[in-house]
Amino acid sequence: MGKGRLEAFSDGVIAIIITIMVLELKVLHGAELADLKELGPVFLCYVLSFIYVGIYWNNHHHFFHVVKKVNGSILWANMFLLFCLSLLPFSTSWMGENHFATWPVVIYGVNLFFCAIAYTIMSLVVVRSSGNEDVAKAMGSDTKGKLSLVSYVIAIPLAFYYPLASGALFVFVALVWFIPDRRMEKMFG
Amino acid sequence: MGKGRLEAFSDGVIAIIITIMVLELKVLHGAELADLKELGPVFLCYVLSFIYVGIYWNNHHHFFHVVKKVNGSILWANMFLLFCLSLLPFSTSWMGENHFATWPVVIYGVNLFFCAIAYTIMSLVVVRSSGNEDVAKAMGSDTKGKLSLVSYVIAIPLAFYYPLASGALFVFVALVWFIPDRRMEKMFG
Amino acid sequence: MGKGRLEAFSDGVIAIIITIMVLELKVLHGAELADLKELGPVFLCYVLSFIYVGIYWNNHHHFFHVVKKVNGSILWANMFLLFCLSLLPFSTSWMGENHFATWPVVIYGVNLFFCAIAYTIMSLVVVRSSGNEDVAKAMGSDTKGKLSLVSYVIAIPLAFYYPLASGALFVFVALVWFIPDRRMEKMFG
Amino acid sequence: MGKGRLEAFSDGVIAIIITIMVLELKVLHGAELADLKELGPVFLCYVLSFIYVGIYWNNHHHFFHVVKKVNGSILWANMFLLFCLSLLPFSTSWMGENHFATWPVVIYGVNLFFCAIAYTIMSLVVVRSSGNEDVAKAMGSDTKGKLSLVSYVIAIPLAFYYPLASGALFVFVALVWFIPDRRMEKMFG
Repeated sequence: MGKGRLEAFSDGVIAIIITIMVLELKVLHGAELADLKELGPVFLCYVLSFIYVGIYWNNHHHFFHVVKKVNGSILWANMFLLFCLSLLPFSTSWMGENHFATWPVVIYGVNLFFCAIAYTIMSLVVVRSSGNEDVAKAMGSDTKGKLSLVSYVIAIPLAFYYPLASGALFVFVALVWFIPDRRMEKMFG
Repeated sequence: MGKGRLEAFSDGVIAIIITIMVLELKVLHGAELADLKELGPVFLCYVLSFIYVGIYWNNHHHFFHVVKKVNGSILWANMFLLFCLSLLPFSTSWMGENHFATWPVVIYGVNLFFCAIAYTIMSLVVVRSSGNEDVAKAMGSDTKGKLSLVSYVIAIPLAFYYPLASGALFVFVALVWFIPDRRMEKMFG
Repeated sequence: MGKGRLEAFSDGVIAIIITIMVLELKVLHGAELADLKELGPVFLCYVLSFIYVGIYWNNHHHFFHVVKKVNGSILWANMFLLFCLSLLPFSTSWMGENHFATWPVVIYGVNLFFCAIAYTIMSLVVVRSSGNEDVAKAMGSDTKGKLSLVSYVIAIPLAFYYPLASGALFVFVALVWFIPDRRMEKMFG
Repeated sequence: MGKGRLEAFSDGVIAIIITIMVLELKVLHGAELADLKELGPVFLCYVLSFIYVGIYWNNHHHFFHVVKKVNGSILWANMFLLFCLSLLPFSTSWMGENHFATWPVVIYGVNLFFCAIAYTIMSLVVVRSSGNEDVAKAMGSDTKGKLSLVSYVIAIPLAFYYPLASGALFVFVALVWFIPDRRMEKMFG
């Protein structure tokens, strides 16, 4: 089975997720600069989630570039990743509209954690499927993936005390990933 | 005529359907865990419909993998399937916001029933068109398809007495389909 | 220049147009059948516009199947068609929510008229561009296109007297087009 | 690494941006012509932004037609362009709903300015990457790009005195770009 439609469908879903988040920047009826300032936290959260979804698309792109065969399990593991990502517009807006209050930050962290877990599951399902042995070599030790999971596990309980510190951790993880996955590029560039 | 654009257009529409459902998870203005709990039934319905749309995409993907030629009738049969699927965001939200009340559950069941009928019609139109004789062999007896139709026919009247039991039947059908369509994979894998 | 990205972009825009119309089926907070009945006219308009957009996609698909070369003028003529189609979600909802009142029906007719004009312009731009001489032969006399334009020209003023009769004309044109464009299929099938 | 998925993802995001702007044409509950007139400024802004996004898609299409290799930096530069474009639905509606008031016009100008800067950055990243030396030749002196940037730099402060004059400058830039990028066509047509 070809991987073309899986890539096309994932591209479509991720493109929609990254774009509908902007619908939460609800149009203000006032026309002053002060009205715009109210949107500040929502805008910041939009930027953060745009970068996260961009990172996921980037990594998905690199990852499937080296995948050779796709089967039913990979389709469903990918669907689970898309499901987790599809919740980001909701958790992003909830966090933004409540100015980084505790529970919204917790839920945003849980959402990011599930996205990371789903990506890890998808990678493992691919690596264990026949025909994709090279992917394991290309992935290497996945230090960034492990660092992200640890950061989320710290950020979630931390939000009950210092939600802004959790937010800083989310920014830190985004910065770590911002550099695209050179491992794959090196091997197949 | 090539099947590429039919697949691409279907992927686009299904990707949008599966993603805009999340817009019904309207952002809460309260920031407490109790506020989140209100979204519980809407979230459950979103999960269920996400799985259903995922199943349809999966099966559509497998099905058109073995289709060789596309004609005008197939385009319209596919369009009817997309129309039925496009109503799921509405029926899903109506069921979720009304906590599985009778009429919303009935309409959700009718919607699923029409999706299944539309998929069956599309399959038959494909099988009867010239150049696609192999598809019939690959489809086999379509036990799951028949089981789904029977389940919906039971679930719809059942909702007038026990709407939650109908909901359980919808979950059951989703679980049955969750296992991807091995018939096609076996033959052309 | 290849036509692949023009087709892909058009597919994307048309897929979104056809799907976001369903967002106008706003979720009812009542859970009774009577609540659903209120959505009747909106639903009917959705069905009509879904068929119209489906027809445009179908014809676009058939048309570009025979186009060989794409240039800047064709890109912009296609963009104008997409613009006209993009207004359908608005005019559809306005007509549905106002139960086929005069002005909404007039505007819906004007919208359909502009879509038809835009499609005609696009066809002419393609036919006159170098490398696409075969398309003119494949198009033939375009009887359906002319019949549609005449119908819209009648339906728009008619709406000031009998808006429902205009609505019936829109349904009539949709039925005429429902049969896919056999001309192209015959020649290149 | 292939450029196919970058083009497909960009097409998807741009298709969604250009289409969701129409959601700001909120359905009026009145059914008179006077109700429609209220939408006038929002509609005008929609037309302007549709043309702008169309121009960006057109130029993106032409530009990547001559790009041969894609790397991580190009992916991120492209993502930054998509981010800037994704803010247009917001700034467009804000300007439309406030009838070209000062601050909304300023923000719209800033948004267009950032889109232009992001496109310039993307072009430079591509030109400096190995394997894409021909792109620089094809780009030439980029007179239109420079003229646009100068126009935005004038339009933004001008909005504090004559916001409509800034609007006229935005229309002027759109007209300048409306003619597709013949430079690329000439060289690779």
